[in-house]
Amino acid sequence: MMACGTLLGIGLGPGDPELITLKGLRRLQAAPVVAAFAKAGRTGNAWTIAEPHLLAQQTRLRLEYPFTLEVAVSDPRYHREMNAFYDDCARQLAAHLEAGRDVAVICEGDPFFYGSYMYLHDRLAGRFAAEVVPGITGMSACWTRADAPITHGDDVLTVLPGTLPEAALVERLRVTDAAVFMKVGRNLPRIRAALGQAGMLHRAILVERGSMNGERVTPLADWPADQAVPYFTIVLVPGRQGVR
Amino acid sequence: MMACGTLLGIGLGPGDPELITLKGLRRLQAAPVVAAFAKAGRTGNAWTIAEPHLLAQQTRLRLEYPFTLEVAVSDPRYHREMNAFYDDCARQLAAHLEAGRDVAVICEGDPFFYGSYMYLHDRLAGRFAAEVVPGITGMSACWTRADAPITHGDDVLTVLPGTLPEAALVERLRVTDAAVFMKVGRNLPRIRAALGQAGMLHRAILVERGSMNGERVTPLADWPADQAVPYFTIVLVPGRQGVR
Ligand SMILES: C[S@@+](CC[C@H](N)C(=O)[O-])C[C@H]1O[C@@H](n2cnc3c(N)ncnc32)[C@H](O)[C@@H]1O
Ligand SMILES: C[S@@+](CC[C@H](N)C(=O)[O-])C[C@H]1O[C@@H](n2cnc3c(N)ncnc32)[C@H](O)[C@@H]1O
Repeated sequence: MMACGTLLGIGLGPGDPELITLKGLRRLQAAPVVAAFAKAGRTGNAWTIAEPHLLAQQTRLRLEYPFTLEVAVSDPRYHREMNAFYDDCARQLAAHLEAGRDVAVICEGDPFFYGSYMYLHDRLAGRFAAEVVPGITGMSACWTRADAPITHGDDVLTVLPGTLPEAALVERLRVTDAAVFMKVGRNLPRIRAALGQAGMLHRAILVERGSMNGERVTPLADWPADQAVPYFTIVLVPGRQGVR
Repeated sequence: MMACGTLLGIGLGPGDPELITLKGLRRLQAAPVVAAFAKAGRTGNAWTIAEPHLLAQQTRLRLEYPFTLEVAVSDPRYHREMNAFYDDCARQLAAHLEAGRDVAVICEGDPFFYGSYMYLHDRLAGRFAAEVVPGITGMSACWTRADAPITHGDDVLTVLPGTLPEAALVERLRVTDAAVFMKVGRNLPRIRAALGQAGMLHRAILVERGSMNGERVTPLADWPADQAVPYFTIVLVPGRQGVR
């Protein structure tokens, strides 16, 4: 009987292709099948980061999200359709794994830190051997490129999804030294208001596309209130001892 | 006039030498001088991680901490002596930089995340060109090796130094979904008590030496109350949606 393949979750790091680990690169290049999520009609960020490392003989499996326009997360349709989509992706991967082929799922940043890879891992890691290789997170790239050490000594760091209500953000900001806002996008006005209420706006830094082409670092207080930010944007508040 | 060298802060990652990035390795091997902090009489963890990557022609600069027995952080002597030590290290590095030699300071994990490299960076980055290469953090290695996705969707993650008082830990645990405790060591009994008070003890995982030799993953509730843990230990509480 043929052995099944291994499911691999490969952290590609935050954007610069050189920020993949030696282990991530070795495991990626040894896999006959490479898979990644992407929006329909777009190259997809994971594919862009991995491109210089992919080999001609590797089979590429594009997992295309079902929505072109975004459906609100609060809409029950969202969960129903996303679950059906992840189930279908898991079936596609399982077919390769059952045929004895390892499948490397390439992920922006670290797979287990707000990554969609987890939805495949949850569905398949019980049935097949699975191994994850961690990646440099987007936030590490952002604080490095902003030259902003994030935590010293006894600082508390809180990572906040920008999708939370303003009052929830303020409550957490009041009991932290350093903060990182993920999923900034259309949530920027609310994030800014919360930072203002917590008295932290003057310390906040906006980083667009950390370590990618088009990277930019701006004090948040200088950012025009009505200007949009790219999907890959993080807002940082360095810890107290990082203030110089 | 000769140009000065560049100060480099190189993130080595969490322990497995293969978890350095391609960029970190390239920059490390191009530097004529390599420096790292270590305790007197010990090899030092950064040296152990980097060893397979160091070249014979590189000058090694050991920066030895002044204390063999630990001085309490609350003792004014601690800050005075540590500051004098960091000043002295900065002088040693400056001599190489002024002579035109790049100096790579090798750091466990990510240099800007609770790293001692920051004390050199703060002293030298104004006078010399400085560049930091991010590294995989200890916490990423720990949640990966524990097979414990840390955050999904809208989860809030709080990183807590185990050195904080119990009440401060409980206050932050009550307003987070996921948590990471750094600097566990002798603080484990207090961390455990705080997790118990916050109703999170049953979800907590203790990871010793993530990705290093001697790695071990144990549910915290199963850990004997009087058993010591190594310096490289993290306690994780995966987010709500990570509970399976
Ligand atoms: C679904 S999460 C994925 C996080 C990823 N797994 C990681 O480890 O960073 C996507 C969010 O991460 C943030 N992000 C990730 N990489 C980034 C980068 N290079 N620059 C700025 N923001 C980034 C953005 O806030 C974005 O909305
Ligand atoms: C001074 S901090 C340095 C953190 C490092 N710069 C990073 O990015 O993870 C040292 C603490 O990190 C944690 N740590 C770092 N690496 C670890 C590993 N591989 N396994 C377990 N704990 C680790 C331990 O809690 C330790 O007390």
